[in-house]
Amino acid sequence: MENIKYENGTLFLLDQTLLPNEEKYIVPKTKEDYFNAIKKLQVRGAPAIGIFAAWAMALLDGDKEELKKYLDSARPTAVNLSWATERMLNAYKSGKNLIDEALAINNEDKEMCKKISEYGLSLLKDGDGILTHCNAGALATSSYGTGLGPLLLGKEKGYNFKVFTDETRPLLQGARLTSYELEKAGVDVTLICDNMASLVMKQGKINAVLVGADRIAANGDTANKIGTSGVAILAKHYSIPFYVLAPYSTIDFNCKSGDDIVIEERDGEEIKNMFFEKPTALKETKCFNPAFDVTDNELITAIITERGIIKKPFNKELKKIYD
Amino acid sequence: MENIKYENGTLFLLDQTLLPNEEKYIVPKTKEDYFNAIKKLQVRGAPAIGIFAAWAMALLDGDKEELKKYLDSARPTAVNLSWATERMLNAYKSGKNLIDEALAINNEDKEMCKKISEYGLSLLKDGDGILTHCNAGALATSSYGTGLGPLLLGKEKGYNFKVFTDETRPLLQGARLTSYELEKAGVDVTLICDNMASLVMKQGKINAVLVGADRIAANGDTANKIGTSGVAILAKHYSIPFYVLAPYSTIDFNCKSGDDIVIEERDGEEIKNMFFEKPTALKETKCFNPAFDVTDNELITAIITERGIIKKPFNKELKKIYD
Repeated sequence: MENIKYENGTLFLLDQTLLPNEEKYIVPKTKEDYFNAIKKLQVRGAPAIGIFAAWAMALLDGDKEELKKYLDSARPTAVNLSWATERMLNAYKSGKNLIDEALAINNEDKEMCKKISEYGLSLLKDGDGILTHCNAGALATSSYGTGLGPLLLGKEKGYNFKVFTDETRPLLQGARLTSYELEKAGVDVTLICDNMASLVMKQGKINAVLVGADRIAANGDTANKIGTSGVAILAKHYSIPFYVLAPYSTIDFNCKSGDDIVIEERDGEEIKNMFFEKPTALKETKCFNPAFDVTDNELITAIITERGIIKKPFNKELKKIYD
Repeated sequence: MENIKYENGTLFLLDQTLLPNEEKYIVPKTKEDYFNAIKKLQVRGAPAIGIFAAWAMALLDGDKEELKKYLDSARPTAVNLSWATERMLNAYKSGKNLIDEALAINNEDKEMCKKISEYGLSLLKDGDGILTHCNAGALATSSYGTGLGPLLLGKEKGYNFKVFTDETRPLLQGARLTSYELEKAGVDVTLICDNMASLVMKQGKINAVLVGADRIAANGDTANKIGTSGVAILAKHYSIPFYVLAPYSTIDFNCKSGDDIVIEERDGEEIKNMFFEKPTALKETKCFNPAFDVTDNELITAIITERGIIKKPFNKELKKIYD
């Protein structure tokens, strides 16, 4: 699964908005093409957005300062986006080859994903049943991904996992992206609704839970896609290890605990209208649509980054990998 | 909310398959009309099906034995259906007025719902935040319902509850029916996705969880709509009382524990295709679609029937109301 491919001077992007029903690569040419691909979520996932923007900086002609500003404005809150365009701008100023620099960013991400995948895989055994939530796979990064990394790397190494993926309402990333990605990689995957996680755990089908992270506080509290904290509580109830896999850069040492993380609320129409043929509730019915929740550190068995496997007490152990 | 209305010699049925987008009453005339209304789920919920079938027995001419058999075959596993037609057949044989008998069945159900609602309401206080899952409301019964009963009765008595309803994937009963029903009754209701229950509990928005039941074992283990056990585990984690509300007839004293309850599996297409504009996953992707799960008795704070509020130890306390 390569969502961003550079071949013979041409950049190809897998349009994620069409998945899983259509598998189509687009070839962005103008700066508007690149901008819109980011804006319209044809490319999503922090690392993938950064890599894509790096290619825009490398391949488009014109004023690079202007270009950086323009691209950054496509998703102003995506830290990886401005980080990547900044790095490309500096490379340009110091006369480096920009194609090489974009390739370097891509390769560094691959290396990071590979390390997380290897550490994660060391915690699993052949035949394990795995539950995952949302999408932290190759589609969100350069390759392997973070949360799905051990499963994709494991497949290459001959492991046979039995994976269950929550569909992840309301945006269905688990159905549309994770089940698609694992199916394509030949991993044994079964799609369930979010509310079925308790039953599959009770039935003994799950040996470990793997999820990604959007932000990890200094004490290990972890913000991730809405529903993650519920899965963690179920895992604790059924004595199943719960692993968070994410790049080191996800750890925010300035954020003391999950209490400091503001939860983004999105439009309620996503719950009762999006994806459906007909609205599922009355127009006047209120919806509460938080996009993330915070999983308390006490529910997390280990946090896995490219720097290793971190166990409790997170407050102390996370500090050890800080630089 | 009256889903089955008998007015001036005519029976009206609210077609639940069209909710919440269309509020349409149908008037069944022939035995095929009645049969199809049950078969196609225009009427659903065990008590409601029983009442509707009783009206069919009262209002249709012809051989009543034949009619009973025919109606029973519309949903062979619905115990209330054959119970109601049997009672109507016996009334017919002993020369009773069948309209009066149908009204009696309807009124007894109302009485049962009212008692459950009153017992349930005694456990709540004005202003409480309530979470519910699936639909155990008036649409499934004659009036009030079971799980929603205290909320609808409370509204009449001037209580102001703040209710959150899980949408209840894959069939969306929480969105399509519960949020509709509470909205129509003027109850403050907010629709959430199933995976948001943990966050609303953590935010302190929930003081009690109310759910219905499909079958209660002699030890209190409770089978209900898929996802109920997960909600119960979250409630325990956040120290929120979890109440099961159901008719006495739901208790199966021949069933020792939840281990003896077989979980019905339904077609995976319900997960990835039903209600959606486009499939949410690849054709080849497997789905696991259990319709119910069992909530362990230790997660249940109390079981409320028309015979009172039953607390732990359920094994002992349930026996006391057995007749």
